[in-house]
Amino acid sequence: MKFTIKRNAFIKKLTDVQRAISSKTAIEILTGLKITATENSITLTGSDSDISIENEISIDDSNYELLIDEPGSIVLPARFFSEIIKRLPENTFTIEVNDHFQATITSGQTEYQVNGVDADNYPHLPEIDTNEQLSIPADIMKQVINQTVIAVSTQESRPLLTGVHLTIKDGELHAVATDSHRLSQRKVKLSGAENIDYDIIVPGRSLIELSRMIADSTGNLEIQIAENQILFNFDTTAFYSRLLEGMYPDTDRLIPQSSETEIELNAVNLLHAIERASLLSHEGRNNVVKLSLNSESQTAVLSSNSPEVGNIEEELQFDKMTGNDIEISFNPDYMRAALQAFGQAEVKLSLTLPLRPFTLMPTEDSEDFVQLITPVRTY
Amino acid sequence: MKFTIKRNAFIKKLTDVQRAISSKTAIEILTGLKITATENSITLTGSDSDISIENEISIDDSNYELLIDEPGSIVLPARFFSEIIKRLPENTFTIEVNDHFQATITSGQTEYQVNGVDADNYPHLPEIDTNEQLSIPADIMKQVINQTVIAVSTQESRPLLTGVHLTIKDGELHAVATDSHRLSQRKVKLSGAENIDYDIIVPGRSLIELSRMIADSTGNLEIQIAENQILFNFDTTAFYSRLLEGMYPDTDRLIPQSSETEIELNAVNLLHAIERASLLSHEGRNNVVKLSLNSESQTAVLSSNSPEVGNIEEELQFDKMTGNDIEISFNPDYMRAALQAFGQAEVKLSLTLPLRPFTLMPTEDSEDFVQLITPVRTY
Repeated sequence: MKFTIKRNAFIKKLTDVQRAISSKTAIEILTGLKITATENSITLTGSDSDISIENEISIDDSNYELLIDEPGSIVLPARFFSEIIKRLPENTFTIEVNDHFQATITSGQTEYQVNGVDADNYPHLPEIDTNEQLSIPADIMKQVINQTVIAVSTQESRPLLTGVHLTIKDGELHAVATDSHRLSQRKVKLSGAENIDYDIIVPGRSLIELSRMIADSTGNLEIQIAENQILFNFDTTAFYSRLLEGMYPDTDRLIPQSSETEIELNAVNLLHAIERASLLSHEGRNNVVKLSLNSESQTAVLSSNSPEVGNIEEELQFDKMTGNDIEISFNPDYMRAALQAFGQAEVKLSLTLPLRPFTLMPTEDSEDFVQLITPVRTY
Repeated sequence: MKFTIKRNAFIKKLTDVQRAISSKTAIEILTGLKITATENSITLTGSDSDISIENEISIDDSNYELLIDEPGSIVLPARFFSEIIKRLPENTFTIEVNDHFQATITSGQTEYQVNGVDADNYPHLPEIDTNEQLSIPADIMKQVINQTVIAVSTQESRPLLTGVHLTIKDGELHAVATDSHRLSQRKVKLSGAENIDYDIIVPGRSLIELSRMIADSTGNLEIQIAENQILFNFDTTAFYSRLLEGMYPDTDRLIPQSSETEIELNAVNLLHAIERASLLSHEGRNNVVKLSLNSESQTAVLSSNSPEVGNIEEELQFDKMTGNDIEISFNPDYMRAALQAFGQAEVKLSLTLPLRPFTLMPTEDSEDFVQLITPVRTY
């Protein structure tokens, strides 16, 4: 294998593929980056066996100034290789692999020799044996991910809850995540998916990496689903993730259908107030803040009290409040994560009783996005 | 105590004083920030008993919009207090302390109450009982510090070597640091110090913090030295540091007075080459790179070899080389730190024998600054 390529452009693709490569893996060869060169393109592959990422660079893409002298393949230590490439002195570099799996990397007066491994020993990527393909705009998928992964469980004791439950039915995608203290649910219409039917659980970590990778992508994600794998194709990238196996709990019945008290306010203002209150709650023994709503006097007060350290009280600005008076206590970290997912929007909090879950919805398009938080008992 | 002040301006002073405050101190009250208000100013004090920093804000300084309603003092938990101040909603805040050492911090609709401690329990700052005062431009002092602290020892086993040895004599300041593997020495003329004579050791950590604080300072540092303390005054800040007690080893005799081989090159170019070579040496068992100088063929080659991982070889650009051929092996981390201290300058390496220390000096003003590195035996 031998090729020459522009360094900066290559580094971007390398960084993407490295998202899948962990130095902590038990499978030695997976700490490596697989590079394959054909007559027309090179392909970078990284995998931690849960996530696999493949990125192709074509000789036709002028950004890379790619010149392939000799096809072939090699596996190189990923972190070390990427540090070398980042430090090379010139704008381009050449990599040449000999029969002993040694790669010579040349750039200007610098010449590295790096010991590699036969690419034939690298695990095969999953096979996706379906012709059914879904399409979704990358920015929408990113939104769906970021609005739901926040509620995913980080506890491995209930592995299914570490995933996001995706159901595709009647041309709609439902995404739900819950760690049993809070829940986030997002719905999106999918065009051209009327006859497609899926019910899968994708690991939250996979979706977070995917979301970071599609950061600036403006095109569509093409999605293919097999028995225990999902494949996202976009730009020149193939992103594979393992699926979680099992029956996700029924979450529809958890979301309250009515409420006794409603308040509408700006998500960012409430977020800042929550951040101020949580400074105090984090210092105390219980990480709890209290929201006191009084319809008659039209006051909304956020407070937290940790006798050892001090207390905070803040009167909130709001747009509208109706219904019964209520005092409700909750974990401010859940509230903060929920509010961040609303961006600049106006949100409606709907509450019933002090110990019953309450919901947050955008005041506009409230059908499509709902978050639920379970209060904390403080007495 | 009660005063109102502009938040952003206050935060800057607070951040400065916090440099001296550690949450890991064994003395509980030193995790606190002391605030004292008189009729005309407020003073912030932080200390970890090695370093103490005092910062004064006057009502005459219009940047602070400081209004003092009632003099007094308090000690508040430093980290918590600073997080609160950073998160407050308005541009100004008011702090009021009651008889029970409780501080009420108000900004807009937000009101924090924070439990404090009686400032009478806070340790007194060191007394500096001298009228002798030295003056040095802040930017020169910063340079002296940054060029010498790099060679300070991080091992507590020889505590004196964790400091920088400062001698002031005949109107000149000599600063020397060595960890016994390398040494850095800087000399500066001090105007108006002809009759002043000091020989002290200042902890490297103190000087690093001082250097960070004077980052943008354009004025002079006023220095006062007492038996076991040094005080730096600049702008509105008083920076105290404990001195290390003992006899610093004689370092003058360590610096070779002659050389067999000399090479002149650009510090930045060599630095980059060293960084590339150290990528490899860091992966291997011995962290060593080799410099091979050949006067006759006029080649300078930097290389490193770690059989498990690979090797690197790079031909260096240089301006001038004279003397005997030599191969010398050294720790690239020492070389990197040394080169960083030269900035963009041209440097001269002077070498004698493969196992004898070699020196780095700027090609201009070579009298004032010298660094020394001890090679590594590789056979």
